[in-house]
Amino acid sequence: MSESPFQAAVALQPQADGSFLGHTSAAYANMVGPFGGVTAAQALNAALQHPQRLGDPISFTVNFAAALADGPFTVAARPARTNRSTQHWVIEMQQHGETVLTATAFFGLRRDTWGVDEQAMPQVPMPSDVPRAGGPTRVEWTKRYEMRFVEGPIPSDWNGADQGGSRSRVWVRDDPPRPLDFASLTALSDIFFPRVWRRRPVLVPIGTVSMTVYYHADAALLRATGDGYLLGQTQAQAFRGGYFDQTAQLWNEAGQLLVTTHQVVYYKE
Amino acid sequence: MSESPFQAAVALQPQADGSFLGHTSAAYANMVGPFGGVTAAQALNAALQHPQRLGDPISFTVNFAAALADGPFTVAARPARTNRSTQHWVIEMQQHGETVLTATAFFGLRRDTWGVDEQAMPQVPMPSDVPRAGGPTRVEWTKRYEMRFVEGPIPSDWNGADQGGSRSRVWVRDDPPRPLDFASLTALSDIFFPRVWRRRPVLVPIGTVSMTVYYHADAALLRATGDGYLLGQTQAQAFRGGYFDQTAQLWNEAGQLLVTTHQVVYYKE
Repeated sequence: MSESPFQAAVALQPQADGSFLGHTSAAYANMVGPFGGVTAAQALNAALQHPQRLGDPISFTVNFAAALADGPFTVAARPARTNRSTQHWVIEMQQHGETVLTATAFFGLRRDTWGVDEQAMPQVPMPSDVPRAGGPTRVEWTKRYEMRFVEGPIPSDWNGADQGGSRSRVWVRDDPPRPLDFASLTALSDIFFPRVWRRRPVLVPIGTVSMTVYYHADAALLRATGDGYLLGQTQAQAFRGGYFDQTAQLWNEAGQLLVTTHQVVYYKE
Repeated sequence: MSESPFQAAVALQPQADGSFLGHTSAAYANMVGPFGGVTAAQALNAALQHPQRLGDPISFTVNFAAALADGPFTVAARPARTNRSTQHWVIEMQQHGETVLTATAFFGLRRDTWGVDEQAMPQVPMPSDVPRAGGPTRVEWTKRYEMRFVEGPIPSDWNGADQGGSRSRVWVRDDPPRPLDFASLTALSDIFFPRVWRRRPVLVPIGTVSMTVYYHADAALLRATGDGYLLGQTQAQAFRGGYFDQTAQLWNEAGQLLVTTHQVVYYKE
């Protein structure tokens, strides 16, 4: 089986000093620099592939300090604290000796407990009943995902009229489809176009500055989800003074909540 | 004017190596170790008081790696990247040479832009029309906050019956009242009791492992809010395998959204 574009994009080479060497991926190029979701996945991978890793990711926060230049980068993951069944990571990515990304991650061994999904998957049409978003795209990375919008597609009329809300709902999976893992789930947490464009269709410059991912899925639930579609739902809470937040959920087709995620985004004007 | 308990609790002394020395506060003691909100505020303070600080906090993520022991701690804040109008911090707190907390923060200079609060404050009774939560409390820190529950108070009957939802709404402010600042707003982001106790009233052991705060308020909005009440709303999205998330909003009495915040919490059983 040949390597998928995603696997190739997030691959890291261990270095003698314990850090990893990676490379930006032309397949996931964005307007300026690469798609942040893949950069986040590369950063998480430094902990996932670390020889001292304990357990699976429970939470992950990534801060984008600068647009990455096309080319190589180093990423170092340090286990700042390892307890009996939990582990805290501090992660930093550099290019040309300058920090381009900081991150922290919390890993843990899960145990069986009482549980429930309080945020239920909304009732929406099946993926096969929703057309794929298509047509020419200005950025390469969106071609690496199959997106089928149920509500709130990317605006076609950039008229600036207040839409009264910013919610979108979209079926999404990797293209080509591939079994879900923690790295790809992290990238999928960042596939939502900026809520400021949805609430008020003006093509203002934007950039995510920080994203947090909470993994409700363990490895068994990832396996059960396989290469199926995920339903993503996202909405902003406040836009003010050049920054807005957006919150999102990702369910699998069976309606299990795999991820809740949040980000704060810079916008101009 | 004498120093408030909060000011005393979050005070830091600069050290020769650029780090800060702080001390846990008996006034904010929790079941095991101190109230995490004040620990988070102490960590943020290391960036707020740093001589290289640029702008105000936009986002902050704190990871609780171990329960703090009563006594002194050191906290180091490093500006990993400073751009023209933004700054990324990496923060670490230690006791006895071991890491007890990691954090990252994003600071920025805000500019005037189009904006709107999409998440509107719910219609609730005024603080004066809601009784203060009172009676004996098992932990000291809750006495440092005036809380008036509009919905979902701490359970009085721990019968374990599924409540069908985990939402709480509460008017809250420091006791004694004091003008809001970024440190106290950070602590207030953590005043919500764990959603697992609300959804299913069983007094299981819990502990926040990571909290993210997005500050929608700038310094002018903090001044306008003064020492008034904040309305807090919080709800979980998923409980599974020993961890749940909870998401929250804090509005001022005028209905302006000051903070959106998220955390992931360990629970046993």
